[in-house]
Amino acid sequence: MYSAGSLFQLLRDGRPRTRAELAAETGLARSTVTQRVDALLASNLIGPADKAASTGGRPPTRFAFNPNARYVLAADIGATHARLALTDLAAEVLAQSADDLLVAAGPEIVLDWVDRVGHDLIRQAGRDPRDLLGVGIGLPGPVEHSTGRPVSPPIMPGWDGFDVQGYLQDRFGAVALVDNDVNIMALGEHNVAWSDAPHMMFVKVATGIGSGLISDGRLHRGAQGAAGDMGHLQLPHGTDVVCRCGNTGCLEAVASGAAIAAKLAARGIEASTSFDVVALARGGNIEALQLLRQAGRDIGEVLAAAVSLFNPSVIVIGGSLSQAGEHLIAGVREIVYRRSLPLATQDLRIVQSSTGDRAGIIGAAVMVIDHALAPAQVDLLMSAAPAAMS
Amino acid sequence: MYSAGSLFQLLRDGRPRTRAELAAETGLARSTVTQRVDALLASNLIGPADKAASTGGRPPTRFAFNPNARYVLAADIGATHARLALTDLAAEVLAQSADDLLVAAGPEIVLDWVDRVGHDLIRQAGRDPRDLLGVGIGLPGPVEHSTGRPVSPPIMPGWDGFDVQGYLQDRFGAVALVDNDVNIMALGEHNVAWSDAPHMMFVKVATGIGSGLISDGRLHRGAQGAAGDMGHLQLPHGTDVVCRCGNTGCLEAVASGAAIAAKLAARGIEASTSFDVVALARGGNIEALQLLRQAGRDIGEVLAAAVSLFNPSVIVIGGSLSQAGEHLIAGVREIVYRRSLPLATQDLRIVQSSTGDRAGIIGAAVMVIDHALAPAQVDLLMSAAPAAMS
Repeated sequence: MYSAGSLFQLLRDGRPRTRAELAAETGLARSTVTQRVDALLASNLIGPADKAASTGGRPPTRFAFNPNARYVLAADIGATHARLALTDLAAEVLAQSADDLLVAAGPEIVLDWVDRVGHDLIRQAGRDPRDLLGVGIGLPGPVEHSTGRPVSPPIMPGWDGFDVQGYLQDRFGAVALVDNDVNIMALGEHNVAWSDAPHMMFVKVATGIGSGLISDGRLHRGAQGAAGDMGHLQLPHGTDVVCRCGNTGCLEAVASGAAIAAKLAARGIEASTSFDVVALARGGNIEALQLLRQAGRDIGEVLAAAVSLFNPSVIVIGGSLSQAGEHLIAGVREIVYRRSLPLATQDLRIVQSSTGDRAGIIGAAVMVIDHALAPAQVDLLMSAAPAAMS
Repeated sequence: MYSAGSLFQLLRDGRPRTRAELAAETGLARSTVTQRVDALLASNLIGPADKAASTGGRPPTRFAFNPNARYVLAADIGATHARLALTDLAAEVLAQSADDLLVAAGPEIVLDWVDRVGHDLIRQAGRDPRDLLGVGIGLPGPVEHSTGRPVSPPIMPGWDGFDVQGYLQDRFGAVALVDNDVNIMALGEHNVAWSDAPHMMFVKVATGIGSGLISDGRLHRGAQGAAGDMGHLQLPHGTDVVCRCGNTGCLEAVASGAAIAAKLAARGIEASTSFDVVALARGGNIEALQLLRQAGRDIGEVLAAAVSLFNPSVIVIGGSLSQAGEHLIAGVREIVYRRSLPLATQDLRIVQSSTGDRAGIIGAAVMVIDHALAPAQVDLLMSAAPAAMS
């Protein structure tokens, strides 16, 4: 307690402070402050700020958080597409790369891609590999966050129980954190657009459907990291459509991008993916627009109970289908405002994602930064030898 | 930061420490520790510990949390019954009182009872009124916790928007905190029996049905304090029973104590309250037992989706009907383990409340203690003149 790591938390707000100000703010002995500031300077996590402000004499040095001290690799793996970014310690993207990649190709192929492209990004950015703070990765299925292993993921053959965390830690020599894609999207969206809203639901509508819950500003993962899994909840009005999970009546079986594409194809309209649905909707295809509106209503049926139970102040609709215009979200609003308990919808906002396809990348970076810059981790970080003093 | 209030948090674990140990543990300057220990001693929140351990010479004094420094009044108001307790700062009940009281009689009558009986308890316990840390109260309806006012509570005519917090603060001259009865029961049960389980659902089955959610060890109240309101969620298989809320198909309309009593009465069995149902079940009445089992299944239908979404590690079934034996909980288990997502039920326990009818009282006390002994509040407390030095 009250370690260098704790002192550092103060400085993460970006405001520069002198040693005397830090002593006054914390009640720490002046000698302790000096010792801890020195350790933080050696780690490069803080640096002297605004030297130019000197007007003669020797004013006391002020210190500030240095978001370039280290960097993060953030990966967002979807069913058919993968993104990887290099970010600073404020989750700002410095460089990125993306590729069509099937998660069903298995963990070695996908994680080798992360390994190769990640090291390319580091090299191209001219960064020291030892300055990598950590790797964050989102996967399209349930993940036990504490062990970094997927748990019975329905669309990820070969991944069940695979040690994703250990694999990436070996390849990069830094901490790796794994979560499901919707959780990291919720983190990213909350960090960028809704940090003032303590209770938020992020709903991803793409090939599949899932949600991430923010409770009191923190991700609610649940006991198995399975919280927010709403794609396989039953629609109240029932349906006999068979879901890829093997059950019938799941929300995902009727309202996902894959389900809408299949319905369009059955009507002789060329569509096989979420992206086809989005393209048709943007082109004004009436049937695509009608199906999107109905998908919104179906999602609303399941969300209505979730809203009564969780009582968020904002629901963010993201994922590829959310980019097809207002029809999907209008359908969601139509049902949620009618069906949820009046008190729970009193000030509820239902909005489109503002981070779009960057939500996952930003969230994966935030996950690593929040973990690795917590007090105890910073103390560990500083007990290791500093890598580069760039 | 690093104030006397922060120092006090260390001591709340009950372990006595010397000034030197506190300085070592915190990194605070020795002079700062002395200053803050003196302030805490003056406030009576800590006291010298184990003087008897002295074996000659003058060993350094050790200090420990003094749970008797102040006391709390904790009220649990049900639909037809009210309880009030005086507890110490560890939420141990020191004295209590209970009475049949209709919440529908309105706020003045109910809160006057709290006022009168509360002051009686304080006097009988021989405590100084100025040592009251605060008043916690649970009410059987939705409450906006931040303002301490009920919000459109269905069974509490006259209470909508009533300033319960202000009323009690005026009467007792201490902070008052208000929440709904299920939230405080969740807090009480979590505090006593499940403090190691970060994610918990507490389901109250009594005259009505509701739940309280614990996320990462903290109560998830939601944006309007309406989280956990599951009594008015729709049963998946539908029903045309009209609920007291005006809708049809609500869980509460078919599975609450009131609903079961009505079903028994319709069969010519004398029953009008939850307590009658419990008495019949304990007496082995087959129809009561069958209806309890079916109520458990109906609750399980609604809980199944909640479990998938929230992914708790434990569900505690409390409220008066939970005391009727294993039939209710067996019905809940039957459906939840069949219907929830496999990952979410992997290690899920569904258990009976261990605090029984004390859950609300303990939770109301915990709510006040956690609020009023937080660092910033302790700092405020100490800036006021100490009341008694008992």
